[in-house]
Amino acid sequence: MPTPTTDHSGSPGPTVAVSDPMNTVTDSPEQQAKLDEMYAQMKKLDLIPLWTQRADLMPDVPDPVATAQKWDWQQLIEVARRAGDLVPVGRGGERRAIALANSALHGNAFIAPTLWAAIQYLGPGETAPEHRHSQNAFRFVIEGEGVWTVVNGDPVAMRRGDFLVTAGWNFHGHHNDSGKPMAWLDGLDIPFQQQMDTAFFEEGTERVTDESTPETSRGERLWCHPGLRPLAFPGTQTSSPIPCYRWEHTDAALTEQLALEDDGYSGTVSPGHAAIRFTNPTTGGDVMTTLRAEFHRLRAGASTTAIHEVGNRVFQVFEGSGTVLVENEEFTVSTGDVINVPSWKPWSVRTDGGMDIFSFSDAPIFEALHLYRTYQQEGI
Amino acid sequence: MPTPTTDHSGSPGPTVAVSDPMNTVTDSPEQQAKLDEMYAQMKKLDLIPLWTQRADLMPDVPDPVATAQKWDWQQLIEVARRAGDLVPVGRGGERRAIALANSALHGNAFIAPTLWAAIQYLGPGETAPEHRHSQNAFRFVIEGEGVWTVVNGDPVAMRRGDFLVTAGWNFHGHHNDSGKPMAWLDGLDIPFQQQMDTAFFEEGTERVTDESTPETSRGERLWCHPGLRPLAFPGTQTSSPIPCYRWEHTDAALTEQLALEDDGYSGTVSPGHAAIRFTNPTTGGDVMTTLRAEFHRLRAGASTTAIHEVGNRVFQVFEGSGTVLVENEEFTVSTGDVINVPSWKPWSVRTDGGMDIFSFSDAPIFEALHLYRTYQQEGI
Amino acid sequence: MPTPTTDHSGSPGPTVAVSDPMNTVTDSPEQQAKLDEMYAQMKKLDLIPLWTQRADLMPDVPDPVATAQKWDWQQLIEVARRAGDLVPVGRGGERRAIALANSALHGNAFIAPTLWAAIQYLGPGETAPEHRHSQNAFRFVIEGEGVWTVVNGDPVAMRRGDFLVTAGWNFHGHHNDSGKPMAWLDGLDIPFQQQMDTAFFEEGTERVTDESTPETSRGERLWCHPGLRPLAFPGTQTSSPIPCYRWEHTDAALTEQLALEDDGYSGTVSPGHAAIRFTNPTTGGDVMTTLRAEFHRLRAGASTTAIHEVGNRVFQVFEGSGTVLVENEEFTVSTGDVINVPSWKPWSVRTDGGMDIFSFSDAPIFEALHLYRTYQQEGI
Amino acid sequence: MPTPTTDHSGSPGPTVAVSDPMNTVTDSPEQQAKLDEMYAQMKKLDLIPLWTQRADLMPDVPDPVATAQKWDWQQLIEVARRAGDLVPVGRGGERRAIALANSALHGNAFIAPTLWAAIQYLGPGETAPEHRHSQNAFRFVIEGEGVWTVVNGDPVAMRRGDFLVTAGWNFHGHHNDSGKPMAWLDGLDIPFQQQMDTAFFEEGTERVTDESTPETSRGERLWCHPGLRPLAFPGTQTSSPIPCYRWEHTDAALTEQLALEDDGYSGTVSPGHAAIRFTNPTTGGDVMTTLRAEFHRLRAGASTTAIHEVGNRVFQVFEGSGTVLVENEEFTVSTGDVINVPSWKPWSVRTDGGMDIFSFSDAPIFEALHLYRTYQQEGI
Repeated sequence: MPTPTTDHSGSPGPTVAVSDPMNTVTDSPEQQAKLDEMYAQMKKLDLIPLWTQRADLMPDVPDPVATAQKWDWQQLIEVARRAGDLVPVGRGGERRAIALANSALHGNAFIAPTLWAAIQYLGPGETAPEHRHSQNAFRFVIEGEGVWTVVNGDPVAMRRGDFLVTAGWNFHGHHNDSGKPMAWLDGLDIPFQQQMDTAFFEEGTERVTDESTPETSRGERLWCHPGLRPLAFPGTQTSSPIPCYRWEHTDAALTEQLALEDDGYSGTVSPGHAAIRFTNPTTGGDVMTTLRAEFHRLRAGASTTAIHEVGNRVFQVFEGSGTVLVENEEFTVSTGDVINVPSWKPWSVRTDGGMDIFSFSDAPIFEALHLYRTYQQEGI
Repeated sequence: MPTPTTDHSGSPGPTVAVSDPMNTVTDSPEQQAKLDEMYAQMKKLDLIPLWTQRADLMPDVPDPVATAQKWDWQQLIEVARRAGDLVPVGRGGERRAIALANSALHGNAFIAPTLWAAIQYLGPGETAPEHRHSQNAFRFVIEGEGVWTVVNGDPVAMRRGDFLVTAGWNFHGHHNDSGKPMAWLDGLDIPFQQQMDTAFFEEGTERVTDESTPETSRGERLWCHPGLRPLAFPGTQTSSPIPCYRWEHTDAALTEQLALEDDGYSGTVSPGHAAIRFTNPTTGGDVMTTLRAEFHRLRAGASTTAIHEVGNRVFQVFEGSGTVLVENEEFTVSTGDVINVPSWKPWSVRTDGGMDIFSFSDAPIFEALHLYRTYQQEGI
Repeated sequence: MPTPTTDHSGSPGPTVAVSDPMNTVTDSPEQQAKLDEMYAQMKKLDLIPLWTQRADLMPDVPDPVATAQKWDWQQLIEVARRAGDLVPVGRGGERRAIALANSALHGNAFIAPTLWAAIQYLGPGETAPEHRHSQNAFRFVIEGEGVWTVVNGDPVAMRRGDFLVTAGWNFHGHHNDSGKPMAWLDGLDIPFQQQMDTAFFEEGTERVTDESTPETSRGERLWCHPGLRPLAFPGTQTSSPIPCYRWEHTDAALTEQLALEDDGYSGTVSPGHAAIRFTNPTTGGDVMTTLRAEFHRLRAGASTTAIHEVGNRVFQVFEGSGTVLVENEEFTVSTGDVINVPSWKPWSVRTDGGMDIFSFSDAPIFEALHLYRTYQQEGI
Repeated sequence: MPTPTTDHSGSPGPTVAVSDPMNTVTDSPEQQAKLDEMYAQMKKLDLIPLWTQRADLMPDVPDPVATAQKWDWQQLIEVARRAGDLVPVGRGGERRAIALANSALHGNAFIAPTLWAAIQYLGPGETAPEHRHSQNAFRFVIEGEGVWTVVNGDPVAMRRGDFLVTAGWNFHGHHNDSGKPMAWLDGLDIPFQQQMDTAFFEEGTERVTDESTPETSRGERLWCHPGLRPLAFPGTQTSSPIPCYRWEHTDAALTEQLALEDDGYSGTVSPGHAAIRFTNPTTGGDVMTTLRAEFHRLRAGASTTAIHEVGNRVFQVFEGSGTVLVENEEFTVSTGDVINVPSWKPWSVRTDGGMDIFSFSDAPIFEALHLYRTYQQEGI
């Protein structure tokens, strides 16, 4: 508010010539005293003027506090193993999960303002007790096997490349039925639900309710037939009834897209870039109302065009290596590495030898609220 | 994780008997050193264990940081007048708006984690320049008149009791065409959009683009005929095309509900409690995707049953006086007073002499994401 | 199938050279005998070949059986009066309604394959008993007053220009509380529901359940406040809860559109052509799932561009006179006259002195099923 | 209208004592003359009274004209072979399809008022030329293989048990690449679109646009991965992008449901009755906006409870044999037999040796319009 408005109605208007854009300093000591007194009174009354912080509160484009950051999988797994040796898993702490905490987010255990990402670790024979919470969750398995996640009594085997859905308010626990430890990536909307004050939590049983270890979960047996749904469950469901999206299907879908491209047909997102979205088969939409999950495959030598997107995205490299460019910063990534992209920061990916990437984001939140935007500069 | 898990597979498990629930202290100095080293390494790698803060991150029920707080209208208007004398309005600061800052929210200018409420003040002849932003906004007029809000070139008179919608990304400015100052309540989703990193902003003209002062806006002339929509605009619109919901309509709707109740018919929410929701006539849903607005009228002697709701609610008393009970705290309120109710805190209202209350909330966010819950105890 | 296919796999194919496009006649007596025998066998087995009627079943564009037809209001009212003298109204026949039967529709009482239109007549003091049916219905009042339609116990006054909704499965009756007879237009989806076999019917009381004669129905008192909905009824409703759309609102909406056009603003559908759609305020969509209703006003000298639309439309002139052109046929129409436009027949309207027209159609059916299409030739 | 209404307002009412319920006969010759004259005038003016046909037009429950009817597959295939010998396939007739014509439907080639079912037959090397139409279509393969349906240039192999979707307005042709003839079931909404006047048709090429004969279509390669969708096509599609639902998936889904039932878990519709619905993966809803398709499997000895449903259903037995009971009529059915169930007629199925049944219906029409109802009597 540097320029006083032109008075067009006879009103005297503010008598103080204000020389600072934020109107907190003036040349006249007398006026300054009045200003100071006013700001003091506001403070006392729990009031804050807009004009002193308008640009911060209402930036021209999203100006995230979070910065792009990379976590090295070997370091993650090393710390997780150490926690496996030192810290038991059980009721109270609930999970041996170690969160990737964006260094710009004030010491919060958040990889992004809305998203949680953690490495969870379960030793041979261990059980993470059952509970349920309003937070939506998924697991993505970068390596290993031997753990079953039991969701509402349905044991779901976890194997390399699998994407498991544990939507809000379903009881779930994990148990390691093998002789080896196992680690995986947990993704949740904990930060969003914490800031929004929507979180509910309830403990379940200490042991998982079904300790059997079937190859295929009952949910998959009902729901994993392409385009077919069991007539016994005809309605729309808030989140996906598919407990696990198996790697063999994901891999096949991506392989076919690139094969179609080779044959001259459409199917890939852009040249050399195949991608699928995990969906809720009862709606065709995202697996959960707050979380989107995708899998991307870039051929050797492929790259993507930089894109700005509202919302937060996290990548985990599944196989291969390459470079993620966020604004002007380059991150070299390889198997298991995790990197976040803050809102509206342009990002692109390239790879010399080919790369498979798992991705998740909060895009469904913004699409539901009509706040989603993207921008892609031509020719970049 | 106070109790080590029972080993059922021969795995040795963590060898340390952990005596603190958070697993940060142990009896053995040797183990303590290992633990300390592990936590230090986590910190260095920007990692934070879940088990030390699980209960904070995932509470049993929403555990908001914000507290219920009341602002006195006479104090608000007094500070606003002083700002009117001392601080000009214009480009940069953009608005002479003074935000109600919940004292528990760390010095942020937020009445709730998602909501902004401010008193805006415009002196005779003053203009608040045009701009647009992704934030959704509304105005509610507690008293006075003489200002026109110009939305996309359509001048909208502001008068006592009116509810004005300025949905995201529409250019708008305000100008006071009268010889008297005017103040009103601004409500926006600034905190939500700031935390979500979805905010865009663009300056418009210094003066409002249309300085005419019609009684009725063009938007009202097109859209304010009950159940009728102009055939020229047949589609669904993200937010309401009604620029202003006039007091005479709101008043009439509430009056009719109570009259129907008197005649023995349904219509009120509960005995003596009439209420309407402001809606988008192209969808029947809320006026904007992130904001809900309602108007409640309680007869003399009426009261409401305590209710828990996910999300944040703000009340402003329009007329009369009464008591708002939030959890165990009672707030006496009268015309113009503003009070917020944090998520899941049970609230109820009662009045001896009758009370009209304007209310707004973030409920559409949680309904869209299927995170909305309410709970009403029987017989209370 | 005039041309035998080229054989590209060694198959001999049909050995008969067929000389008629429909393959029912051949030059060879021997073959003819075989053909005749085959067609006879088909008939015996309740089988019909596609190839003999493909063009009829699957025309290039919709080829309606119904033709455009006009009914003269003076003749309608005259017949209705005579029926009023001769035929009582009561249980069994249920209504003294006389249907406009499109002369091309094989003696069915249908104005269009999906739509029913009738003039209903009620003498002084008469009652049409209560019943309910799955068919959706409305009333449009071209002249007169004095009858109340009682819908689920809510008496709704009928007055000139009013549009009343009686959606499927709501009990309703009519009673004439005045000393004069009254006639109006009934519109229903009887033909659609008959052909679709979806019709249910149930008798109610002989007399209307509430014989009071209020100026305004309870439904209007709850729902006819622009953009406001009673909080006691927050959900989506299949059909409009507004019992009656009053003429004063319709008239005002149309008047405003033309006034905005005069001032240089958008609002009309095309120059000199104002129009509104009656909507369900809980969805913003059509008043009922199978019926659309609109009101159009053309200024003196105005005309519309010819348009093709999938589905059936019926007009009733409310005031003034003009010309309706359907394909190449011109119909001169004035107050009360009814005319139907069959599917895909291009129609336009023009008027020298100005004309108000009520319109209804089956468009919601085709929009819901994604079968709706329109086509408007440029410059016509 | 047998009983004259009680006069409660002084109005004389109709002076004629009417002794017939339909008010077409009276005792007084003078009155009879007036009545006759009135009905004659109505007829002349293309008017039909409601009271003489109310019960027919508005029955208490749906009273379909169509009756349940069975077609024997061996007879169908025999006639189709004969047509293959005698009648060529090509432009004009377009398809060698023979429609199952419900004997109660006035000689129309309709199996139900909304549905078309035909056996289509293509000899070795024959081609049915490409065209497109607004009618929605599918193919279901009861036996054989060797034909490819080419949809928008994508060749789709047809094999036993496969369900192929050809939604409205997609170009498609068929060609038999094998040395043997092939026959299959075509299902379309021709009757619905004919009566609704929504039909559009356009010829394409004489030969199919791609004569290659891949095992798997490109559409399947993109879309037949459970719960995964290609990111290149993120939006909602009106009809399913899956060109073919393969028998191996259908069979596996049904097998799993019965296996789950054996293990004590839910999954089947009722004891011994497994069923899936074919769905559009972009919405989770039906494959096309007017057609629903399902597959049912009954164990040996299983039966279903009689159900009334609004709308028309057609069954084709895929394997095994059993009994279909429609109202009071029993039909013994085995492989390939086709039977229709008219609206609201209660139906049930039972089988001694087990039976697989394909089913299609018009239910999506009625669900979209909120006209769908079902009724299942307890304990039957």
